[in-house]
Amino acid sequence: MSVIPNACQAELTELRREIDAIDQQVVDLLSKRQKQVEHVVALKKAHNLQVYHPSREEDLISARRQQARDAGLCPDFIEELYRIIMHRSRVEQTGQMALKAVKPGATVLIVGGTGEMGRYFVNWFSGAGYHVRSMGSKDWPNVAVLCDGIDLCIISVTIDRTAEIVKRIGPYLPKNAVLADVTSIKKVPLDAMLKSHPGPVVGLHPLFGPSTSSLDKQIVVATPGRDDDACRWVIEQFSLWGSIIVMSEADEHDEIMEFVQSLRHFATFAFGQFLAFKKVPLARTLEFSSPIYRLELGMVGRLFAQDAGLYAEIIFATPERRELLKDYINSLSKNLEMLEKGDKAEFKKEFKKINEWFGPFGEQAMRESSFLIDKLIERF
Amino acid sequence: MSVIPNACQAELTELRREIDAIDQQVVDLLSKRQKQVEHVVALKKAHNLQVYHPSREEDLISARRQQARDAGLCPDFIEELYRIIMHRSRVEQTGQMALKAVKPGATVLIVGGTGEMGRYFVNWFSGAGYHVRSMGSKDWPNVAVLCDGIDLCIISVTIDRTAEIVKRIGPYLPKNAVLADVTSIKKVPLDAMLKSHPGPVVGLHPLFGPSTSSLDKQIVVATPGRDDDACRWVIEQFSLWGSIIVMSEADEHDEIMEFVQSLRHFATFAFGQFLAFKKVPLARTLEFSSPIYRLELGMVGRLFAQDAGLYAEIIFATPERRELLKDYINSLSKNLEMLEKGDKAEFKKEFKKINEWFGPFGEQAMRESSFLIDKLIERF
Repeated sequence: MSVIPNACQAELTELRREIDAIDQQVVDLLSKRQKQVEHVVALKKAHNLQVYHPSREEDLISARRQQARDAGLCPDFIEELYRIIMHRSRVEQTGQMALKAVKPGATVLIVGGTGEMGRYFVNWFSGAGYHVRSMGSKDWPNVAVLCDGIDLCIISVTIDRTAEIVKRIGPYLPKNAVLADVTSIKKVPLDAMLKSHPGPVVGLHPLFGPSTSSLDKQIVVATPGRDDDACRWVIEQFSLWGSIIVMSEADEHDEIMEFVQSLRHFATFAFGQFLAFKKVPLARTLEFSSPIYRLELGMVGRLFAQDAGLYAEIIFATPERRELLKDYINSLSKNLEMLEKGDKAEFKKEFKKINEWFGPFGEQAMRESSFLIDKLIERF
Repeated sequence: MSVIPNACQAELTELRREIDAIDQQVVDLLSKRQKQVEHVVALKKAHNLQVYHPSREEDLISARRQQARDAGLCPDFIEELYRIIMHRSRVEQTGQMALKAVKPGATVLIVGGTGEMGRYFVNWFSGAGYHVRSMGSKDWPNVAVLCDGIDLCIISVTIDRTAEIVKRIGPYLPKNAVLADVTSIKKVPLDAMLKSHPGPVVGLHPLFGPSTSSLDKQIVVATPGRDDDACRWVIEQFSLWGSIIVMSEADEHDEIMEFVQSLRHFATFAFGQFLAFKKVPLARTLEFSSPIYRLELGMVGRLFAQDAGLYAEIIFATPERRELLKDYINSLSKNLEMLEKGDKAEFKKEFKKINEWFGPFGEQAMRESSFLIDKLIERF
């Protein structure tokens, strides 16, 4: 690399000064934009309009893409920027909306409200202006007072204690109060709730943890129990917070979660376990890592940075789950012979069969993960 | 949700019109910005200056963050936008720089230049202005002519054929030509190259595939063979294209790659294999998926959307790799008893041990993957 002549250095400095001036204007415009968006939110809030307006967003994106083309910019680049700008504006709008209650004046009791997830719900419901009561394991002497006049009781305790707590609290609930749980299995708790409480019942499974700061596009599975009409406001409250509600029967939910939670977390656990057992040189390995490997290893490291007890509950929740995991371990052994023989043809045959089974999801996964890899490269 | 009164609708329309007008100005400014950046590139190119200027980028980010605070915007939000804007500008600058050769006028022969990866290198070296010759399996009758006067020979064939091709081409290479391979194992090819060619030798392992459109921050492992000084321009060419060069001995490289490539891909393969075997309802499963599960399943689907032969080569490359994979399968069986007994305490003990082994990487992985999950939510 050559030494920079003074004239060139001066020109470079001047160009950078001009770029900074442009950037200043951009930030000022984004600040003006935010103020206009705040007006929109105020209007929407006053008229109970929903925050997310997909067709308006797509129109806006199309207009910006066309404008980018006209201005000689890459349309994908501008779309990417505007996706972030709109997401930010949606999160802020949802944040405002979080302050709104679907059933104003209602009283909510969170059983297990002193746990991490319990405190999380206490915050959300309080933020929306509900009267919120929190009940911990030491509050049983006051249970009658705590349950008096409530409109909703949410059970937020560990999987293994849910059925017992439901049974115990049932007799104290007002007949018209909604009883809901937020456990990650649904059949057992739902049955317990229906048995313990003759009023409205709904099972909820929020697919996110207490570190999630926005509910925007986060999924809540709802399994109907009894009197759906009376339960509707609870579900609508989650919608208002930005969540996507997936309706399901408890059986279907539990079957799918065997894979989505139990199997996946166990496979990740076992992979990390093997890396630790082999004492893989982690730091050096990362230096050799393409962004995608870094991401995959990150998924493993991420698991172990979380709560061991939570994952024990998820993995060991039901005998069915444990059977599935044993199947998984045994299924891997099928590959021992192929590896022993170095049988590439067999591998390719199997690979193609699985590819066919995945169908169009493979292409979609390629696209989504490539997008994320670009993000990783940008950021880290 | 209530019906929208006309006055409110009119106000909403007006606000949206104003937001659109602001957005138009933003895009126009970004277009002006790009033109200034193009001037910077022209200057840098004329004076052989490097594209990536970390301290300038960090200064710019700090200035924009401060400005965001002053304007009542979230600094993280503005930082995020500017990371994208700067990444884009870096990719465009690197694209321009790709047109520059470290050793102008040199001739490069790509053996396997008709394969996917081979064509990829043909494009990059041609783009930088080198004289490029491509050699396929049918070109052996012309090998003497193709090798005549070349400065660099890159072997880009499958792992199992690399050693044989190296042996065959060695006698035709000019004494001072650099011989390099781009195989994903390094010990065997490097030994073969050193034996077959008395001149400069270097092993390269580009940790990316031919679908990668920019080499920005992509990793190339370089294993020194002979006469590092004579090989330097080849490595510098990859640097100029934006790659990060990791120096390593061939033995270390191969050991680490057993984990980074072979084990990881095999574990992913086996997970997909089990999902297919169990006929998991994929589409419905995705509806139940938190963004992180979608991402993890995407990593699995992604594998099967790629070339079976390539993964067979990687997984079965060496007897050591196959031994490691058998170890992995057997290590999983250790967990059978724990699952059988439903022994949560044992699980938690093991979990904590692994967490300690991962050390600070766990926290870092949490941070990085949380960032990506936010990206996924924004985009899809």
